[in-house]
Amino acid sequence: MAVEVVNKKVLLRRYIEPGEAPTEGHMELVTTETIILKVPEASSSAVLVKNLYLSCDPYGRAIMSRPQRGSNHLSTPGLPVPGYGVAKVVDSTHPEFKAGDYVWGLTCWEEYSLITPKETLFKINYTDVPLSYYTGLLGLAGLTAYVGFHEISSPKEGEHVFVSAASGAVGQLVGQFAKLLGCYVVGSAGSDEKVNFLKDKFGFDEAFNYKKESDLDAALKRYFPEGIDIYFDNVGGAMLDAALGNMKLRGRVTVCGLISQYNLETVQGMRNFTLVIPKCIRLQGFNVLQYQHMYREFEEKVVKYVKEGTIKYLEDVAEGLEAAPASFVGLFEGQNIGKKLVVVARE
Amino acid sequence: MAVEVVNKKVLLRRYIEPGEAPTEGHMELVTTETIILKVPEASSSAVLVKNLYLSCDPYGRAIMSRPQRGSNHLSTPGLPVPGYGVAKVVDSTHPEFKAGDYVWGLTCWEEYSLITPKETLFKINYTDVPLSYYTGLLGLAGLTAYVGFHEISSPKEGEHVFVSAASGAVGQLVGQFAKLLGCYVVGSAGSDEKVNFLKDKFGFDEAFNYKKESDLDAALKRYFPEGIDIYFDNVGGAMLDAALGNMKLRGRVTVCGLISQYNLETVQGMRNFTLVIPKCIRLQGFNVLQYQHMYREFEEKVVKYVKEGTIKYLEDVAEGLEAAPASFVGLFEGQNIGKKLVVVARE
Repeated sequence: MAVEVVNKKVLLRRYIEPGEAPTEGHMELVTTETIILKVPEASSSAVLVKNLYLSCDPYGRAIMSRPQRGSNHLSTPGLPVPGYGVAKVVDSTHPEFKAGDYVWGLTCWEEYSLITPKETLFKINYTDVPLSYYTGLLGLAGLTAYVGFHEISSPKEGEHVFVSAASGAVGQLVGQFAKLLGCYVVGSAGSDEKVNFLKDKFGFDEAFNYKKESDLDAALKRYFPEGIDIYFDNVGGAMLDAALGNMKLRGRVTVCGLISQYNLETVQGMRNFTLVIPKCIRLQGFNVLQYQHMYREFEEKVVKYVKEGTIKYLEDVAEGLEAAPASFVGLFEGQNIGKKLVVVARE
Repeated sequence: MAVEVVNKKVLLRRYIEPGEAPTEGHMELVTTETIILKVPEASSSAVLVKNLYLSCDPYGRAIMSRPQRGSNHLSTPGLPVPGYGVAKVVDSTHPEFKAGDYVWGLTCWEEYSLITPKETLFKINYTDVPLSYYTGLLGLAGLTAYVGFHEISSPKEGEHVFVSAASGAVGQLVGQFAKLLGCYVVGSAGSDEKVNFLKDKFGFDEAFNYKKESDLDAALKRYFPEGIDIYFDNVGGAMLDAALGNMKLRGRVTVCGLISQYNLETVQGMRNFTLVIPKCIRLQGFNVLQYQHMYREFEEKVVKYVKEGTIKYLEDVAEGLEAAPASFVGLFEGQNIGKKLVVVARE
């Protein structure tokens, strides 16, 4: 007989509109719903999971926005917020998953989710590394850093690489991948504490606190007197503009995130955008969901690095589903140090 | 005995400052200087040329600007304006050029120029096509269109291509190269007369007058209901923004020119810039001077097209060196229909 339990949820209360900053009021914690811990008879290819760790990411802002052409629309007011996470399979009618499996992929901000997985759920092959790593390092953020650096940025040994939001989930890994390739790597972050992590823990050659720099152009010239080969952009705005002014000939800008711009209606103007022509600069955006076929190759490689200690990783953990809204909102204020995640349950 | 003649010149009077529109007052016609029609004894590798046709191009604005990092600085107030043109060699101590040769490349806005050619002067191999074509179709504009389309835009047969400033020197050729590859091609221009040329003379599938469109996004959706694969951008600004909103997944924006932005201090903000991420859009700037090694391959191919009549070409000709300042200023008002050039002398 199937058990019925309370299923705490974080619902989207209303869309985050263009120009609006995300607030906790966009979401709502509901503790009155229940769920039967069994895939319904009629669902021939579904899994029922217990959510363990949920990822908080800037792209959640797009997920919680009113649908528009070109964006990946996933959310609906009144329903739980969709997001990536790590979960344990409770019941399954899907041939690739069985009860007891650990999985990561697209789930929802709630204690239990009924998922109809397409290409958005991966079985976790390694349980001898912390499972929470699959919300970031070994999940979408890790794959983003891997694809964005190796596939999109066309890196070469010895090149000079600049990473913004460098202590974040993606940035810390991009910097380490670049160091592994023999690049010179500089990161920017928003506090001295983060800057210290970049240099002491992640092995960046240099790092600076952008909030203490009155002139970003001057800061970049200090660290890159001969210019930047690759700018891995997680923030956009004034930093992107300053970087454009400091790119070398044939420099590449990998546009991974634009967190400084997501709450604006119009992306800020860029004084240096015209330099893309004389400097033959390439700006390349990418969506990691187009590269999911590379996941297993990536997982093999990075699990090995983690076990060897070659790659370091920093998490910023919040306890309890009820902490999810504030954790998400805090991303846009730079509150997290390292990969932000929420523990719903540990087993 | 060497002849001394009057050498009419257009000098740069003062730099065009950021935020300023070019005016005729930035230049000055001087008719009092003379020149000896012989390379001075001491110059072992120079050519003295009689200028025949001078090219007017938007990048002249950068040439006449105060030097800044990343730009190709060439001009100095009080000296003749540098620019590309077609000339006849009068005297030469350079091993690759002799008196009587026709050449094209970097010269100056004056009747006679003493040039020390590096990689900026090309011998004209074909004199059975109009020599003036070497200011555009068979010169830098042609190479720009060829490189920008074939090398930078990664085009494939059947793709949907949008070209702005499509009746200009570069745009008309990009559209024709795209048609030759079997693409669907739409161009925008600033008058009905230009639009008619695009459809009737250059074989564009569709064309529209952007000045008559109150909503550029709606215009692009009309011509590209399924989106744009390649946007060849000659203008920047609002058109670039509208195109970004209509790119297909993995669309490419080739940033060739930003004429709408050159007179502004800061490039306008773009509402749709964030779409580069979900749509995996690539923006690639390029400087044709980095591709001069492709010139002979290009020349062979395009001279053949011209002789067969496969490629059409439209020039907008002004008579006399004294017409050069107004011709240049007119570019920024969209006055030219086709490639703008100035005839200094016909032989």
